[in-house]
Amino acid sequence: MEFLVRFESIPPATTTADELGEMKSAERARATELRAEGLLKKLWRVPGRRAVIGLWEAPDATVLHDALSSLPTFPWWQDTVVEPLAVHPQEK
Amino acid sequence: MEFLVRFESIPPATTTADELGEMKSAERARATELRAEGLLKKLWRVPGRRAVIGLWEAPDATVLHDALSSLPTFPWWQDTVVEPLAVHPQEK
Amino acid sequence: MEFLVRFESIPPATTTADELGEMKSAERARATELRAEGLLKKLWRVPGRRAVIGLWEAPDATVLHDALSSLPTFPWWQDTVVEPLAVHPQEK
Amino acid sequence: MEFLVRFESIPPATTTADELGEMKSAERARATELRAEGLLKKLWRVPGRRAVIGLWEAPDATVLHDALSSLPTFPWWQDTVVEPLAVHPQEK
Amino acid sequence: MEFLVRFESIPPATTTADELGEMKSAERARATELRAEGLLKKLWRVPGRRAVIGLWEAPDATVLHDALSSLPTFPWWQDTVVEPLAVHPQEK
Amino acid sequence: MEFLVRFESIPPATTTADELGEMKSAERARATELRAEGLLKKLWRVPGRRAVIGLWEAPDATVLHDALSSLPTFPWWQDTVVEPLAVHPQEK
Amino acid sequence: MEFLVRFESIPPATTTADELGEMKSAERARATELRAEGLLKKLWRVPGRRAVIGLWEAPDATVLHDALSSLPTFPWWQDTVVEPLAVHPQEK
Amino acid sequence: MEFLVRFESIPPATTTADELGEMKSAERARATELRAEGLLKKLWRVPGRRAVIGLWEAPDATVLHDALSSLPTFPWWQDTVVEPLAVHPQEK
Amino acid sequence: MEFLVRFESIPPATTTADELGEMKSAERARATELRAEGLLKKLWRVPGRRAVIGLWEAPDATVLHDALSSLPTFPWWQDTVVEPLAVHPQEK
Amino acid sequence: MEFLVRFESIPPATTTADELGEMKSAERARATELRAEGLLKKLWRVPGRRAVIGLWEAPDATVLHDALSSLPTFPWWQDTVVEPLAVHPQEK
Repeated sequence: MEFLVRFESIPPATTTADELGEMKSAERARATELRAEGLLKKLWRVPGRRAVIGLWEAPDATVLHDALSSLPTFPWWQDTVVEPLAVHPQEK
Repeated sequence: MEFLVRFESIPPATTTADELGEMKSAERARATELRAEGLLKKLWRVPGRRAVIGLWEAPDATVLHDALSSLPTFPWWQDTVVEPLAVHPQEK
Repeated sequence: MEFLVRFESIPPATTTADELGEMKSAERARATELRAEGLLKKLWRVPGRRAVIGLWEAPDATVLHDALSSLPTFPWWQDTVVEPLAVHPQEK
Repeated sequence: MEFLVRFESIPPATTTADELGEMKSAERARATELRAEGLLKKLWRVPGRRAVIGLWEAPDATVLHDALSSLPTFPWWQDTVVEPLAVHPQEK
Repeated sequence: MEFLVRFESIPPATTTADELGEMKSAERARATELRAEGLLKKLWRVPGRRAVIGLWEAPDATVLHDALSSLPTFPWWQDTVVEPLAVHPQEK
Repeated sequence: MEFLVRFESIPPATTTADELGEMKSAERARATELRAEGLLKKLWRVPGRRAVIGLWEAPDATVLHDALSSLPTFPWWQDTVVEPLAVHPQEK
Repeated sequence: MEFLVRFESIPPATTTADELGEMKSAERARATELRAEGLLKKLWRVPGRRAVIGLWEAPDATVLHDALSSLPTFPWWQDTVVEPLAVHPQEK
Repeated sequence: MEFLVRFESIPPATTTADELGEMKSAERARATELRAEGLLKKLWRVPGRRAVIGLWEAPDATVLHDALSSLPTFPWWQDTVVEPLAVHPQEK
Repeated sequence: MEFLVRFESIPPATTTADELGEMKSAERARATELRAEGLLKKLWRVPGRRAVIGLWEAPDATVLHDALSSLPTFPWWQDTVVEPLAVHPQEK
Repeated sequence: MEFLVRFESIPPATTTADELGEMKSAERARATELRAEGLLKKLWRVPGRRAVIGLWEAPDATVLHDALSSLPTFPWWQDTVVEPLAVHPQEK
């Protein structure tokens, strides 16, 4: 099933530019794996914020949580909202 | 997977006592079927409100929506909140 | 650009089952046109609610508004939220 | 009576991986005792967050508070919500 | 255990002055019974609103709900909030 | 007149167990004085939180504020809500 | 003591222009009495809304509630907020 | 000074298409006058909603309120928010 | 025109008692000047909080902002709300 | 298309007056460039807060995000809200 996942990713105030760069690379690498596994389908950026909206596919919320929390920036996330999505009759 | 579902069920102002009684019977009958199918696991009443909290089990949000919307009182529901639940490590 | 659009669609209390059926057909017909024009990309149902989440693509908010308000159920919509989406660096 | 308890558990920024591991073991040990005493009935994880939903049973809110605040992570909890649950007529 | 219960009581727009007077008498009569049974301990009025705050004592949320819903104005209640209260250490 | 006062009391992260113990004693001592003066009538603990609900009696909001801010933990308070209470007709 | 009182005053949809005019006259007449008694000190209009902010003086919340509910438009009020005001040290 | 004004304009359910057309013409006529007087500077439509955002200029909130409430649709407005705007240092 | 201004004033955790005393004196001195200029008309304390409500008079929001931000505690302010006030018909 | 953008800009507690001054100059310089490119059309200050409201024009949300995040104070922004604006029929 699909899930819509939204979160704000706020680096700690003490993060250096180097650490931020390394984190971004690590994040992209792990996201690429999750895309290859079919878990991560699409990411969007919310303009003007450090927030991300993603479309995910997982058999259940436990697998979804394991995927989300495997991302390197997970400890920086705030205000995560996970919405379960049902298939719309028009899409059947 | 499990879902926590909460809603307020507000009968229209014109509902008679008889209609309310019939609705309650029909609701209980359909709920009994959903329990037998393993979709509805538990219901609680929120004290002082016409609100219900339920623990549901469904393979995905589409099956869950079909089950919820098959209940006779579904057109009366307001402020429904569906929360997907992940297994807690201590429960494994 | 893409927009995430969410709304609750509440038929007036006096709507008959026939009117509801006709409205659903008309809605599907218009949505099919909007899909053909590339404006409507995807719809999901929010489980347990009469709410819909859609992914839309439009050159600007004026074209988007014209598309949304051309849907037959538009007068029934409540609590519409339109979020502009930026391309995520990983999608480039 | 039963209570639905939800909280976010945010470790202080200075917590080391070792401290986190010790805390998890201590938490599990105390939770096991509370389960044995019949106070803690079930835990779920909220996907994408450091949040937990639990079903508790206690004779009153004072015993419940003593149980909750006996958990090692209690000083880390934020936004705790405790909902008293009434028996639903269908469960009688 | 004690509960703090707050609600807004909004008579339907069609209620006549006579009906309102009868309802008030019936409400007072039932409240007097609940006081005699030790369930209702104290009521306050929220100034400027049709809202009431009450201190209730009940063995559990099910008995509390039965008491609250036995009041004649219960169908008029909106936005009820029930808070379970624990004994404060200074009161022991 | 009576006031319902609710606040969260969050010790600073650097507070030691000793300091916490001393603060609790000082708080209890000052609260005892306020009870003797008839200002503080009753305290409850909100289960699962570091929050307190109190019933206070004061001739006006200025005297109430002086009483509240004389408590040693006052600098730790967050999200204080003070509600003025009117006498309910049934209590007259 | 002083209170800041804010409310929205929404006439029922069926109110005629004549009824509205009569209500305004009656409201002004009763407000004049409350000003003469020293209860009502000042009224402001919130621009763009049918909302009013008032500064009131009353010995307690019960007298305040009696004054507020004696105004003819009281049954039309929505979302009333009453804030008790303490004297600021600079005003002493 | 400038004000940012936002409102939702919801016609009553009984409004006919003819009445809606007449109202739109009357609204446009009065808005044209307010533009000529320099009070109304700009209007935007919020996509997907019956909401409008406007930039207004008025010597004070009383003149602003008189202008807003002179619009024919004023009785249909809901959730109006008026924000006073200060000149930004970069605009000086 | 008049404005209702509300803010919470939270000194940084590292502020000493001496610094707090100096700040209060400086604040009072600047407020006295603003009163003399007719900008600040009245201050109230919100009981149980470090919050202040003030009635201000200024020709526009830019002058108001300059007055507010000239107060020594301005950098400590949180959650400021400024409401523009229109003259109520009864006050004319 | 146009966007209404609002944010709070909170300098870290350790920022010196010199750093603040440099940041303001850098901010103004970059804003001047964005004005020259036609992206930034107008800025207002929200009185009593460190908040800014801006009117922006960009072909899509991705270009808007790049413009916003190119401002030196972007890492200080909190609670950014971006609203897409549609052309109002009266402006056509």
